This record gives sequence, structure tokens and C-alpha cells, in this order.
Amino acid sequence: MAISAFDHPFLCGLFGDEEVAVHLSAEADITAMLAFEAALARAEAKAGIVPAAAADRITEVCRSFRPDMEQLKIAVATDSVVVPELVRQLRRAIGDEEAQYLHVGATSQDVIDTSLMLRMKTILSLLASRVERVIGRLDQLDRAFGEQPLMAYTRMQAAIPITVSDRLRAWRDPLARHLQAINALEFPVQLGGAAGSLDRLGNLGDQVRAELARELALSDLRQWQNQRDPIINVGHCLSLVSGTLGKMGQDIALMAQSGGEIELSGGGTSSAMVHKQNPVAAEMLVTLARFNAVQISGLHQSLVHEQERSGAAWTLEWLLLPQMTMATAAALRLADQLVGEIRRIGTPA
Amino acid sequence: MAISAFDHPFLCGLFGDEEVAVHLSAEADITAMLAFEAALARAEAKAGIVPAAAADRITEVCRSFRPDMEQLKIAVATDSVVVPELVRQLRRAIGDEEAQYLHVGATSQDVIDTSLMLRMKTILSLLASRVERVIGRLDQLDRAFGEQPLMAYTRMQAAIPITVSDRLRAWRDPLARHLQAINALEFPVQLGGAAGSLDRLGNLGDQVRAELARELALSDLRQWQNQRDPIINVGHCLSLVSGTLGKMGQDIALMAQSGGEIELSGGGTSSAMVHKQNPVAAEMLVTLARFNAVQISGLHQSLVHEQERSGAAWTLEWLLLPQMTMATAAALRLADQLVGEIRRIGTPA
Amino acid sequence: MAISAFDHPFLCGLFGDEEVAVHLSAEADITAMLAFEAALARAEAKAGIVPAAAADRITEVCRSFRPDMEQLKIAVATDSVVVPELVRQLRRAIGDEEAQYLHVGATSQDVIDTSLMLRMKTILSLLASRVERVIGRLDQLDRAFGEQPLMAYTRMQAAIPITVSDRLRAWRDPLARHLQAINALEFPVQLGGAAGSLDRLGNLGDQVRAELARELALSDLRQWQNQRDPIINVGHCLSLVSGTLGKMGQDIALMAQSGGEIELSGGGTSSAMVHKQNPVAAEMLVTLARFNAVQISGLHQSLVHEQERSGAAWTLEWLLLPQMTMATAAALRLADQLVGEIRRIGTPA
Amino acid sequence: MAISAFDHPFLCGLFGDEEVAVHLSAEADITAMLAFEAALARAEAKAGIVPAAAADRITEVCRSFRPDMEQLKIAVATDSVVVPELVRQLRRAIGDEEAQYLHVGATSQDVIDTSLMLRMKTILSLLASRVERVIGRLDQLDRAFGEQPLMAYTRMQAAIPITVSDRLRAWRDPLARHLQAINALEFPVQLGGAAGSLDRLGNLGDQVRAELARELALSDLRQWQNQRDPIINVGHCLSLVSGTLGKMGQDIALMAQSGGEIELSGGGTSSAMVHKQNPVAAEMLVTLARFNAVQISGLHQSLVHEQERSGAAWTLEWLLLPQMTMATAAALRLADQLVGEIRRIGTPA
Repeated sequence: MAISAFDHPFLCGLFGDEEVAVHLSAEADITAMLAFEAALARAEAKAGIVPAAAADRITEVCRSFRPDMEQLKIAVATDSVVVPELVRQLRRAIGDEEAQYLHVGATSQDVIDTSLMLRMKTILSLLASRVERVIGRLDQLDRAFGEQPLMAYTRMQAAIPITVSDRLRAWRDPLARHLQAINALEFPVQLGGAAGSLDRLGNLGDQVRAELARELALSDLRQWQNQRDPIINVGHCLSLVSGTLGKMGQDIALMAQSGGEIELSGGGTSSAMVHKQNPVAAEMLVTLARFNAVQISGLHQSLVHEQERSGAAWTLEWLLLPQMTMATAAALRLADQLVGEIRRIGTPA
Repeated sequence: MAISAFDHPFLCGLFGDEEVAVHLSAEADITAMLAFEAALARAEAKAGIVPAAAADRITEVCRSFRPDMEQLKIAVATDSVVVPELVRQLRRAIGDEEAQYLHVGATSQDVIDTSLMLRMKTILSLLASRVERVIGRLDQLDRAFGEQPLMAYTRMQAAIPITVSDRLRAWRDPLARHLQAINALEFPVQLGGAAGSLDRLGNLGDQVRAELARELALSDLRQWQNQRDPIINVGHCLSLVSGTLGKMGQDIALMAQSGGEIELSGGGTSSAMVHKQNPVAAEMLVTLARFNAVQISGLHQSLVHEQERSGAAWTLEWLLLPQMTMATAAALRLADQLVGEIRRIGTPA
Repeated sequence: MAISAFDHPFLCGLFGDEEVAVHLSAEADITAMLAFEAALARAEAKAGIVPAAAADRITEVCRSFRPDMEQLKIAVATDSVVVPELVRQLRRAIGDEEAQYLHVGATSQDVIDTSLMLRMKTILSLLASRVERVIGRLDQLDRAFGEQPLMAYTRMQAAIPITVSDRLRAWRDPLARHLQAINALEFPVQLGGAAGSLDRLGNLGDQVRAELARELALSDLRQWQNQRDPIINVGHCLSLVSGTLGKMGQDIALMAQSGGEIELSGGGTSSAMVHKQNPVAAEMLVTLARFNAVQISGLHQSLVHEQERSGAAWTLEWLLLPQMTMATAAALRLADQLVGEIRRIGTPA
Repeated sequence: MAISAFDHPFLCGLFGDEEVAVHLSAEADITAMLAFEAALARAEAKAGIVPAAAADRITEVCRSFRPDMEQLKIAVATDSVVVPELVRQLRRAIGDEEAQYLHVGATSQDVIDTSLMLRMKTILSLLASRVERVIGRLDQLDRAFGEQPLMAYTRMQAAIPITVSDRLRAWRDPLARHLQAINALEFPVQLGGAAGSLDRLGNLGDQVRAELARELALSDLRQWQNQRDPIINVGHCLSLVSGTLGKMGQDIALMAQSGGEIELSGGGTSSAMVHKQNPVAAEMLVTLARFNAVQISGLHQSLVHEQERSGAAWTLEWLLLPQMTMATAAALRLADQLVGEIRRIGTPA
């Protein structure tokens, strides 16, 4: 299938990103959901809600369990979430005795949101290293060409001479700020139970949630199932990064057009004109920036998350965040490649 | 991989749509691109630009050619478009003599845009039948329950009694208008050559393009490679349909909540509460409506398509239109199912 | 006050448009609302619901009535719509006897939506003339410079030589298509009463609404109070026009940057560099295109218009459509000016 | 004029906010721009670039100067920015001798962006107090009704009983987080000169900018004229607040609809139904949330800010940020009012 360019059979050559995509796969989701269930059982064992032996058995099964995907798909068609069927299958694997101690006090959204946060934490850390890498490359360019003259353009008109350093800093400085923003992101555990009140855990709710957070190395936050700023904060960082790279891409495409200001190795070929070297990666950075700038609107729409749980608002995120993540991943990969292809930068003498 | 919920291993149980997705697959794209190349050769043979035998040979090869997908993917990474590599492979298959007559005067965008239009024409016709089907189901409901009383709600407050007919017409009437809009859509052929001027075809350009349109049963339009209203008009219809179904979904979810006004068979289960029947399909209609309302913004952004061809603006469409199409397809499928599940509608006596 | 650049004390020098803004003023709105009430009384007189003398009296008062604006503002704070207070004031002016025949069977949304449609019809006709005017100017340029050579740029790279005509057609052709789309727009009357069912008019509802449409020279359509495609179709045309002009603006800014391809009179000055002539109008066309591309998303969101009347969805349109209209008006004004400032176009020999 | 509902003659009864709007007025903008010019002269005097007497004279004139607004408007039509004409007028007022020391090394964007940041800092502090006030009111409700039972709704279906406290915390907790985010916002000075490199200030650029920041109580940041994350971070906070209030508004509207769960004083009247009390403020919170969720997309689009200064991307912000600010201000005002109108909350016994 080929609905998304990010995992399309041939477009993924341009937009794909194996390293990040693997964390967004159904398999990684299931692994993280199983990690949630195991950690919950252990946290509840610690609180005396679940027998230690049951927590051990659950942990053991969750380590290697592989669900029947076809059944999951069929169940999602009616339940809209995968968890009821996954828990059903898992209970069968665990066995009668301990199965009752699985998923105690939790609900589907707890599992799905926590799985998302576990994986987004990994992904954002990975993207942060890429941001650092691009910054490193820009610093390298600065050392090599920073003092070269460059014509500044303001409002699409040649203005006054600046240096290559000046231009590079406008690409680099915001990336350094975005890196700080990414590093300050919170990835909270979600545990609310049927309606957010952890009703089944009595007065042990806060303790179990805190222990669960510790187990999963996520931050602890009272239920945020219907308060989606943690999600939007991630999307905000994703779009800041792709936006800043889009500015760089636009600049490089303009430099390549006016000719002489930049020399790139690589670049695409044309089916109609053999003499052309299209600055493909530069253009794609603009595309990916505008794509994320569109998607972020939907994340903000999903703040209007009615009552204790809105299927409509919540599911909207599922259609947006994975694509935004891939767009930023692809942008960082392309930016890294593009900056690496700069052979020379600056107005020719 | 699982970036898009529309072709995700288990979420596709909810959002997938095989019947439409098949036309958005890489395979269908290639089939349509091959149809373009064959039809172009025949149109150029008719104009005397290409020998009839070469057109025959090209047509024959295009009928059964299967490209090396891995090579396509690798080439897209540098070219950003699949066509140069596809043409290369195709020329090898055609053989030295006639290979020179393939793709004469055309460029990548001609192939890709025309392939898209061929498939969107098929898909929109398919979606139109589904709109008709939903209208039919609503008419059926109207005949069964139309005269039943229903409390009208304005501004989230009970207002005055109306009939079920009144409510159903607010769902049905706009669908009938959208159906007209879909039926009035134009699906133009794209043929512009390297820069839109069909420079390689001399004064035969208009004739070849008209013949190509005829061959492919598309409408004839001077190059629109950098004028994207034909794409946006399609997106407009897609979002009108999903938006109207979103209104219906919201209404049904509210009717189900307040209880008694509607009786549905089906509905999702909860991992925490066995007594619940979630109106999943109704909620998803809202989700899909809001999703398309977000995406349409990006299509309008891509109207700012600089110069003769903007890689940045053009590629943005690739990230948006397939998902919008799937969202509308899924919405129509879910709407059909949901309306079919209405057992009773109207305020209980 | 200065919240909107479109009527800001000094920014309106750039973004303002008196000719269109006048139709979006509170005064024009009130005039159109009074026209609705008068026409409704006459239509109801024709149907025998209202005495002819009362309709005459209502028509007479509506012709010259000037409401107490301060009271309207105060009432809107609690009612969120202006109509209840306007009707109250109007009834006092009409006098006891006939006042009961004012606003019979109508509700606030009927008045407000119909007033909007009356004014949008006028505005779109005005914008259509401007589109024609810009097309005329482009035709003139074509006659003067069409055969001049111009370097085509594809994917931000010099491609092959084309003619000025080729470039101009990419600006002009879509405008001609948008003109057709504008001319095909429907501007329907809205009349639904308390909940859309015209309950107060018995079986005369359709007749009254048809007569009202005839009186106001609007098209007749069953209530669309909760079916907002007529609004979105207008927004669609507005954004198509501004988007196509944004493409032209982007092209002209790029031509001005690369130097030599275009010669413009006019242009902005810089507070830091006296030698610069900024292609201000060209840039603003890009701004206005992107602005409308953002706003259109909100109109599509408002399709999810729950139940018989959604205050939330309906009011969202009020925040979007006037600005979109002004953006397109300003874009057309600036485009007209900009194209008129082109002294020469084409690659210099 | 009445383009924006936020300063419309009668709609401002609902959407207006005098307290915030005053800081977005043309007058406040000019006052802040004059403060910039005076502070710049003083900072440059400290660095020895400008004579102390000239800085005094400039400071004195800037304190009371009132520009010719009509001329500003006329100049904006060609320059697109107000600064060149403002500086011209100001120089005349200062007198020949010292006029040369005005605006030394600065450019229009420096003045406009810094004026914006000065005012946004004031406004966000004001909005922060309102957030605190709404939190205070919710705490008060919690103390009064927190232990009352309330039916939880998940996926538009009655789920299990919770307490009023649980619901209130879902409104309150995110507001507390947004308050932290607002308090962590940076409001940087902008000083870059003609092309961002402060070329006219030699090696004193950083010193002057730091001193200017100190003078204006803004944070110091190297030029961010083409790196717009400081703007987007503000927009992000604005939309978080309006989004969370939108969730509260949606909840309250649903509680009011289902009846009995909430008792409100106030509410709007209907022109067709005298018995209705519409939860107008609750609905408007949804409207304003969705409005900002739309606008934020445009701010992210403006990250693609080409070269040293993009008139197109920069000006787009002008069309978006003031409206977003007003939307959040109105939302906070309405939320404060709405929560204050809650007489009782919780499922009736």
C-alpha cells in the first residue's frame, strides 16, 4: 500500500526514514504496550494490589508475546482501539490464574498514550542527536567559509554584503534553541482508568502511577487523557525543527538558483533536461516544513477534547503525529545530507 | 510499517479501505504511468511525430511491464521523482530502435500528474456511488421514521419539536449537492514538456495533448503544472463530503449520548467497562472531517507554485491528497455502516 | 482600534480596500438585515400571513431605520447575536399595531445568514470585475511582450527558454477558470425559523421562502443553517483567486530578485538602505495567498455543525470569512497595481 | 469598519476586550516604536556612537511625539512598513542637528519587532493574571462542589460516576501548566540593522543590543528577524490557553444540554424562542479555541522566512498574531465570566 509517502514503496527513497519509522511500527507499538502492562503489574504488586507472582508471570509473558495481528485488525474495526483484543489475547497466554491481574485499573487510552510517549521519548532523543549533527556540520562550514562575503537579500532584493557566517548563524541559532526545547520536553505516563479517576485503585492510584512512571522512565503526571498539551508540545518542537530547516532549504534553493553563491555535489536529474541538477533536498525541506505547519493545526484542534475521553479528538492525533514525526525525521536526514553536500558557499570573487 | 492509519496493520481495520486504496498503490500508479506513455506514443504517431510501429511496440511493452521497484526507490532518493528511472527501465525493455520514441516531449510531471488524474477520476466516481448509497439509506430511514417527532437542538439547547425528516434532510441535502459537485469535476490531462511550453512538439503540441486526453478519457486543458486548481477542486469535494458526514456523525454521537433518540446496533467495546457501547463510527466521522479540514489548508498553500515548476509546492500535494482521499473513502464506508445500523430514530414517546 | 490589518489606521494603506470593506461594515450589515425583514413581511403578505398594510409599514420603517448601536453591542454580549435587540428596537419604531408582523416565523440566523449572502453576492460580483481587469492587463502585457524570450525555471533551476506568453498564461488561465467558478456561485436565501422547519409558517413555508428569495434576488434553497457548503464554496473561490495571485506575486518577486527579467515602476523604500526598491506588492500577494490558505481550514472545520444550529461552528465563520474576503480584495487591488507597474518583462537580450 | 469581530461595532460586545486591545492599537504601537528609538539612542550614547545630548533630545521628543497618521497610512501603501515615514516625521521634530543620530544602525524590522515584543510582554503578563483568576475560580468551585457526584462520559457515553473534582481538575491542571509556559516565555529585543549583521555599529553591535535590551526590559538575543520561533512560542501559549478553555466550554455546553448537571445564571436569549437560555459563553470558548487552532498554522508557515528578511513571511504574522491574542483574551474574559456564573455543578441527586 502507498497512502503515505513516508512508507511508500518508492517515494520512501526520498521521504522514508528507517531509523525513526521502526519506532512508529505496529510492532514497536505492541512492544511498548506490553511493557506498559508488565510495568503496571509490577507497580501494582509493589502497592500490594497484585500478587508478586502474578506480576512476574505477566512480565514474563509480555517479554515475548506476539499477538495475532489479523484478530487485532478485526477487533479495531468495532472497538476503534486495539487494547481490548490485545488484553484478551494476552490473558489467554498468561493463563487463568494470573490473567485477572493484567490491566488492573487501566483502560485502553492508558496503554495507547503511554506506548506513544515511550516511543516519542526515544524518537525525540534520536532527533535531538540529528539536530546536534546538523549544527555540527554548520559549525564546520562556518570554520571553512564563514569569513567569505555573501550578498544579503532582504525582501527579495540584494541589500548589502554580509558574511557567510551571518547567513549560517540564521540557520544554526534557532536549531540550538529548538534543541533546548526538545531537551526540556516532558514525556508523561498516562494512567487514569475508566474515566481518569483511577477508581479501581482506591487511594493507591497516585502511588501506582508514580511507580509506573519510574518503571518506564517517564515523568509522572496526573491523568492527561483529556488534556492534550503534552502531545502538542511535542508537535510544537517537531514543527519548529522542520520549519527552521525549511527556511534553510528555501535559502539554499534560492542560492542555487541565482547561481554561484553555493556549490553542491549531488542533486536530482530531470527526465526532460539532462543538463539540470535540481536541488531536490533543499526543496523537500520546504515541503516538509509546510506539511508540518499544516498538521500542527489539527493537533491544536484536538485540544477541544470533550468530557472524560473524546474518541473523535483523540483519534485525530493518531492521523497527525506519526506523519509529523516522520516529516521532521526526513527533514533532518535531508538537511544533514544537503549541508554535507555544500562544497563552497559565498559570493564568488 | 505503520505511518498512516489508513494502511496500518491493525488500525486499517477502522480506517482502511481496500477498494479505494488499491488505486493509490504504487502498482496502480505505475500502471497509469505506463498507460500515459503508451497513449502519448499513439497520440504522437497520429500526429506523425512517432512511427506507428514504435507506438505499437511501446503500447505492447507498457501493457505488461513490471519495473524493478528497488531501483525506482533508489532513484527517487536523488531525482525526487520516479519517472527518469522508470523511463530508463522502460527504454531497455522496448529495445534500441523504438526506445527513442518513448516519452517524446514529455517530462516527469506530465506522467505523474496525469497518472494521478486518471486514478482520481476512477476514485471519485467510486466515491460518488457511495454518496448515492448513503443518500439512499437516508431516504429509506426517512420513509420508515420520517414522521416521528424529534427534539430540535439549537445552540446546544432543546428548542422545539421537529420531525425526524427535518433532521435527516440536513444530512441528506448537502450530500446531494456534493454529488453534483463531484459529477461536475474536471480531470484534465497534463502535458507540458520540460517547461510547460511543449517545446519539443513544435506546433503540434495542442493536437497531441488533445489526442492524449481523448485516448485517456480525460479532459483537455493547457498545461496546469504550475496552476493547481484542478487538484484543489478535487480536495474541496473530498472535504465537503467528509465534513457533511462529520456533522452527521456528531449529531448521531449526541443522540446516542442523550439516550433514547437513536437506537444503534453494533458499536465498540471498552477494555474497562463491559456495559458500554461506544458509537465508534459516529466519532470517527468527526475525526475524519476535522482531518480533511486540516489537510485542505496545505492544498491551498500549494497554489503558491513558483515559476514553471515548483518541486516544493508540487510534492506537498503528494503528502496530502492520498490521505484526504482515504479519509473521505473511510468516512463514506463508516457512514454507510452507521446509517445501516440505525434501528430506530426519533424521540421516544 | 487596530486588530485587523485590513482596517488598521496605517496598515490599511497596504491592506485596506474601501470599496469592499463598505459592504462588510456594521452599517451595511444592518441595511441588509432590514432589507431581509422588509422583504419577509412582503413575502408573508403575499402568502396571506401578514396584512398588506403591516408589510407596507414594516417596509417603510426598514427603509430608514437607524438602530441604537450601543444597545446592540450590549445585547450581543449576552445574546451573542444582534437580531433579538435589533428586532426589539425595530418593533418600537414600527408601533404596536404592526410590530407583531415583523420577523414572523424567522430566527436570528435567518437574518444574519441572508444579510451575509446579500452582501457576498455584491462583493463577489465586484471581485469578479477585478479579476476581469487583471486578466485584461495580462492580455495587454501579452500583446506587448508576449513574444519576448524568458528563461523558464523548474525546481528553482534555469531550464529552457520559453516566451513571456508562456509565463503570462500560467498567471492568466487559472484566473479565467476562477472567474467561471465565481460566476457559478450560488447565493441562497436562508429561512428556517426556530429550528429550520419553518414551523410557524405551516404549509406556506416553501412558498414564503421562494418569494423571499425572489424579493432579494437570491437563490432559493431549503434551510442550510446547519449545512455550510454555500459558505465554503464562496471561501473556496476567494482562496483560489488569492492563491493564483500569490503564485504570480512569487514569480514577480523572483524575477525582480534575479534582476533584469522584469522592470517595475513603484516599489517600497527601506529605512536602512536608500538604494533599494522592494517589490512590496508582489510579496504581499504571497502573504495574502498564504493567509487565505490558512483560513480556509477553519471554514471546513465549521462543516461539523452539530444539531439544528451550532453557535460554536457558526460563529467561527464570522471570524474567518470577512478577513478572507478582504484578503482577496486586497490581493486583487495589489495585483492590478503590480501588473500595471510592469514596464518591461522578458530576459534582456 | 468591521472586518474583525474583535473590534466590530456590535460584535465586540461579545469578542472585544478593551484591556488587551489597547496594547494592540496603532497608538500603543507608535508609543512602543518611539520607546525603541529613544532607548536605542541612549544605548548608542552609552557606547559612544551617539552624543549624549542627541540621545537626550531624541528621548525627549519621543516622549511626546504624535505622528501624522494620514501620512503614515499613505507611506505604508508604498513602503509596506510604517517606519521610514515615522522616522522622517520624527527627524523633522527632532531638528537638524540631532536628527542624524536617530535610528542609527537600525532598520524597520528592528523597530516593529521590538515594539511587538514590548507589547506582547505586557499582554502575556496580563493574560497570565487572568489564567490565575480562572484557576482561582475553579478552585473555589472545587471547594464548594468538589465532592458532588458527576457522571463521567467517555466517547460520548455515560461511563462511571466520578466527582466534580475530577472534572474540574481536567480544566484546571492544564491551565496551571500553561501558566508556567507563559511565565517561561522569552520576549527578545530585535536589533539587526539593514541585513541582520549590525554592520553600521562595527564591533559595538552586541554591546548596543544588550544595552537596548536592558533599557527595554526585554531579553537579549542575536537578531531573530528571519528566525521566528520567538513569535511562534507566544502563539503556542495563546493557543494552548484558548484550547484548554475550549475544552471547558465544550464540556459546559454538553452539561447544560443534558440538563441538570450544571446550573448557570446568565445566558443568551433567542429571537424565536423566549424560553431558551443559550450557553453563549461556553459555545464561544469552543469557537475561539478552533479559531486559534487554525491561525497557529500560519505562524508555523511563516518559519519559512527566506534570506535575511522576507516581507511575505513577516507580514503574514501581522495578519495572525493580533487576532490570536484577542481570541485568547476574549476566551479568558468569557471563561472567567462563565465559571463565575456556575451556581451548581454535579449530577442532581
